[in-house]
Amino acid sequence: MTAELLDGRATSSTIRQEVKAEAEQLKAQHDVVPGLATVLVGGDPASKTYVSMKERQCEQAGMRAFGRHLPADISQEELLGEIEALNADPGVHGILVQLPLPDHLDEDQTLAAIDLDKDVDGFHPLNIARLTLQDVEPTFAPCMPLGCIELLDRYDVDIKGKEAVVLGPTNIVGLPTALLLLHRGAALNVCHPHTEDLAGISRRADILVAAIDEPRMVKGDWVKPGAAVIDVGWGRVKDETAEKGYRVVGNVDFDQVKEVAGHITPVPGGTGPMTIAMLLQNTLLSAKRSVGA
Amino acid sequence: MTAELLDGRATSSTIRQEVKAEAEQLKAQHDVVPGLATVLVGGDPASKTYVSMKERQCEQAGMRAFGRHLPADISQEELLGEIEALNADPGVHGILVQLPLPDHLDEDQTLAAIDLDKDVDGFHPLNIARLTLQDVEPTFAPCMPLGCIELLDRYDVDIKGKEAVVLGPTNIVGLPTALLLLHRGAALNVCHPHTEDLAGISRRADILVAAIDEPRMVKGDWVKPGAAVIDVGWGRVKDETAEKGYRVVGNVDFDQVKEVAGHITPVPGGTGPMTIAMLLQNTLLSAKRSVGA
Repeated sequence: MTAELLDGRATSSTIRQEVKAEAEQLKAQHDVVPGLATVLVGGDPASKTYVSMKERQCEQAGMRAFGRHLPADISQEELLGEIEALNADPGVHGILVQLPLPDHLDEDQTLAAIDLDKDVDGFHPLNIARLTLQDVEPTFAPCMPLGCIELLDRYDVDIKGKEAVVLGPTNIVGLPTALLLLHRGAALNVCHPHTEDLAGISRRADILVAAIDEPRMVKGDWVKPGAAVIDVGWGRVKDETAEKGYRVVGNVDFDQVKEVAGHITPVPGGTGPMTIAMLLQNTLLSAKRSVGA
Repeated sequence: MTAELLDGRATSSTIRQEVKAEAEQLKAQHDVVPGLATVLVGGDPASKTYVSMKERQCEQAGMRAFGRHLPADISQEELLGEIEALNADPGVHGILVQLPLPDHLDEDQTLAAIDLDKDVDGFHPLNIARLTLQDVEPTFAPCMPLGCIELLDRYDVDIKGKEAVVLGPTNIVGLPTALLLLHRGAALNVCHPHTEDLAGISRRADILVAAIDEPRMVKGDWVKPGAAVIDVGWGRVKDETAEKGYRVVGNVDFDQVKEVAGHITPVPGGTGPMTIAMLLQNTLLSAKRSVGA
């Protein structure tokens, strides 16, 4: 292996400790405890797991978690009422609505109802607009894209003037990450799954972000020697040699790419843990702003 | 010259005739005359010229132009009151706020006050967010970017699966055009003025959009043979052989590039006239939607 690991697990642990220390300071100096409200509608098992991880890590970082676990058949009006109540609650500094919502609910309208100052997940449409445009800043950027940038920064990977390639313009990760890289001064490439010569375009990248939802698609010969490779994929592939009969893999063929890249995220343990760390960091930031700290 | 001209003057003339015919039909069938309100604050000469061109072309296309020419020292509150009145006016189907506004006014807040259904200029932040994301459509897309796409479509230049390069991620043109091309299925490149090897990246382009604000920067050897080259630049350079002592040029060295490209926009007469044509088309569309036509 020649690539340095972009170790999301270790980095996120460092960040969570930093957040905890700052939260303690905020409590001591301003008597404010950062509070995150997690809004979960219905009982989707994956969503429940994500939300409980977020709540647990929130509390471990010395912050308050307000779980709002709502029935699957809640009406849009009732859901908006819950959001309004959280907007008005001074103990709540961040509001996260776990997506996807059940089909009968309007995600756009729900996200747009969140107070911009509490939009720690960064998906309020005004924040998406600000993320898109030059020279304006969102109140908060989406957490997984932010986690990708934070990993690059913590490992001193330059962005400005470099060439970035994002495979997969997804709303949750690919597009916002692309915009963050662009506004940090990278020359940007964005490809679709149907783009011809994905391999050739990927080889241009100093920074390659794989968000293309295809297990181990990015091979060693897709990568420029020395590139930083960020894998936001997550999926299971059958593997009878593994204890559980499957293996968790990303969009990058790690074994091949680690021999070529300069930096690489593992899956698991790369961008996943960074996402929650960024959520905690955004919530802390919101609490600090609320007291002008 | 080997390139076919992407003739914005002729194409916009065709579109304006189409709009006029549809406006007449709308009047005959639904007794509705499309109405565009042009909001001009202060007396900036360039802004006055643009606005009066828009108003004149609007009337020539059988539509109503409501000029709201407001004093330079209008307060933000008064300006928002004007927008509210236009939002409420059933005869107004489109509202265009001519930018830039004087420094004491808040452009973001002003654009966000426009009724989404009347945002024919496409710069309401919710429309920017929808333009950014996959699988959602803005009520209207910004007019100059839309004009670039319309020119490509009218000249049968394929977008899907092609490689597009946008030089200059400007808020008004570069970024929205990039997003439109991406969501039409192009593989996208976006460069900054400071990006190294702009020439090399430009040579990748099947569709090259120059929004880099540098007269005649794009040279013949920046262009892949057969590429479609769209120039959104507009500036004056000294030219003592010209009658007025200057010549209007774009970001592309037309004389060089026309020998290499497959299609090229002239400046003037390219994307400029298309912008107003798209404004009229958006206003017509809004009027049609208002009666479900």
